[in-house]
Amino acid sequence: MSEQSVTMTLDEILALARDCLIANGCDDDNANAVASTVTAAERDGAASHGLFRLPGYVASLRSGKVDGAAKPVIEKLAPGVVRADGRGGFAPLALETGRQPLIDCARSQGIGALALTNIHHFAALWIEVEALAQNGLAAFAFTAYKPALAPAGSTQPLFGTNPMAFGWPRGEKPPMVFDQASAAMARGEIMIAARDGHELPAGVGVDKDGNETTDPNAILEGGAILPFGGYKGSAIAMMVELLVAGLIGQDFSFEAAVNDNNDGGPPRGGELMLAMDPAHFGDPDGWLRHTESFFERYYSLDGTRLPADRRYANRVQNIKTGVEVRTDLRDKIVALTN
Amino acid sequence: MSEQSVTMTLDEILALARDCLIANGCDDDNANAVASTVTAAERDGAASHGLFRLPGYVASLRSGKVDGAAKPVIEKLAPGVVRADGRGGFAPLALETGRQPLIDCARSQGIGALALTNIHHFAALWIEVEALAQNGLAAFAFTAYKPALAPAGSTQPLFGTNPMAFGWPRGEKPPMVFDQASAAMARGEIMIAARDGHELPAGVGVDKDGNETTDPNAILEGGAILPFGGYKGSAIAMMVELLVAGLIGQDFSFEAAVNDNNDGGPPRGGELMLAMDPAHFGDPDGWLRHTESFFERYYSLDGTRLPADRRYANRVQNIKTGVEVRTDLRDKIVALTN
Repeated sequence: MSEQSVTMTLDEILALARDCLIANGCDDDNANAVASTVTAAERDGAASHGLFRLPGYVASLRSGKVDGAAKPVIEKLAPGVVRADGRGGFAPLALETGRQPLIDCARSQGIGALALTNIHHFAALWIEVEALAQNGLAAFAFTAYKPALAPAGSTQPLFGTNPMAFGWPRGEKPPMVFDQASAAMARGEIMIAARDGHELPAGVGVDKDGNETTDPNAILEGGAILPFGGYKGSAIAMMVELLVAGLIGQDFSFEAAVNDNNDGGPPRGGELMLAMDPAHFGDPDGWLRHTESFFERYYSLDGTRLPADRRYANRVQNIKTGVEVRTDLRDKIVALTN
Repeated sequence: MSEQSVTMTLDEILALARDCLIANGCDDDNANAVASTVTAAERDGAASHGLFRLPGYVASLRSGKVDGAAKPVIEKLAPGVVRADGRGGFAPLALETGRQPLIDCARSQGIGALALTNIHHFAALWIEVEALAQNGLAAFAFTAYKPALAPAGSTQPLFGTNPMAFGWPRGEKPPMVFDQASAAMARGEIMIAARDGHELPAGVGVDKDGNETTDPNAILEGGAILPFGGYKGSAIAMMVELLVAGLIGQDFSFEAAVNDNNDGGPPRGGELMLAMDPAHFGDPDGWLRHTESFFERYYSLDGTRLPADRRYANRVQNIKTGVEVRTDLRDKIVALTN
């Protein structure tokens, strides 16, 4: 496999992705939303959610599974609950469309929920919680996928890798954001290891016969990923299923797998976001100064960093210098565009 | 140390705890609320949160840190946010007082938050999320404590063991509930191991010099517990600090330690609960049947159990047979009562 790469500016990455999506059936709004999401991942050095995903997006447009011209519909389900029905499109446009209603909801009610339905989510969750936190809100996001993760005690996949993300506003500073799979390792990272022929550390997964393995392909081909932290990560993965499927009437991961056409792109599913406005929780004037004193204390300990620090450092660098993109990947996307 | 025990009915445990609390300055409402919480733990076989905690409760009444006659005050901070100010009492009465307002809030708004302030929490969180789930609501609870847990990358304690609990309603069946510390092992379990002279598994904590140890006393005396699942558990512990201290204007664990008198009982702090009504999230008629199909699938896998299954089995048994209570503990509580 070629290791050659080419330096691309973020504008070039955005255009490459957008053109490819439009060539494959996306309208402008959806192409811009998905391409922005892909570009944000490249900008932050998160290659596993960047251009690497574009062939999957295209596959789902070509198979007809995803509607590249879907127009999300917003509905208020209760004073504190907004639904953004993605109408079978990719998640990014539904997220953009639902963002301001969720912000308005949290600001007026103190806390609000956004149920995203009928979307195809193929990106990281930090993007949407960071956007909420930049608007001064604390935010959660949860989503499922197709079975990949074996519940604690079992070796059979049932849960998706089921990430949970959380963002906290820091005034003028970039928000505190984490986004972590319920798996010992994110599926995207295992895919990257498989592509690059790398072995995995122990404890990440089992093969199709339930035996522990360090071969990423053995995990991806009929095996199962293990939860992080044993039964505790397993409980969080289950919680995510209940929130994004049971609560909002979308497919559990095991149902999504049955309903998916396995075209290589994301299945249809749900996402739940929660947003809280610190102005309404009892310390409207003090919370920011107070939490900053906590972060000062945190950073004063040897060896600590905040979860998004590396991404933010990459961001500063990559905005200046552009991003190294593998030539074979760039060429593949160009070929998918023409 | 004596291993002798005596069988007590749940009514006897309740009376033992209540009498002891009243003898030490609790009014009836507070004594009943705390004694019910202690008894629920014994009923479910959760000894580390049962009568074992009573000497700590008493110590905080005797030192004057906790007001045994505190009357919690409810205030609506926003349409979706209720505050229960515990006025310096133990948590259970504030939780009881805030429960119905939180339920009403979630039922009318779809989602509601309960900020518990100025409480002293010395119990498990499953009790309060189970009560919400029994009322048909999905619920989260979070609380902090005093520094015990070193952030990922560090060996110095900053976070409390910071549990997070989640409950899901199952109609006529007992709710799905989990309650898990952000620590590799709950502080209560480490205290029990120390009391019983047991060694801990590797990976639970470090001693005061930052070296890994399996000695529970070395961890409790100036050392630190490690997060579960490495940096992911650490991120969850940090999230809990932000929610129960930063968001609602209460002490971070490191502040609680400074403000605490170290009498052996719980410091003053905050708790956050979130409740969601599945009737308002888009699948009001289908969600219960749908999620039960998920639990059926879950149980169909080899080796799975739900997090509260063991507690519920203990409950059925202990209601019938009573609970074995260590004689030395029972005698200690009797002595504290007279």
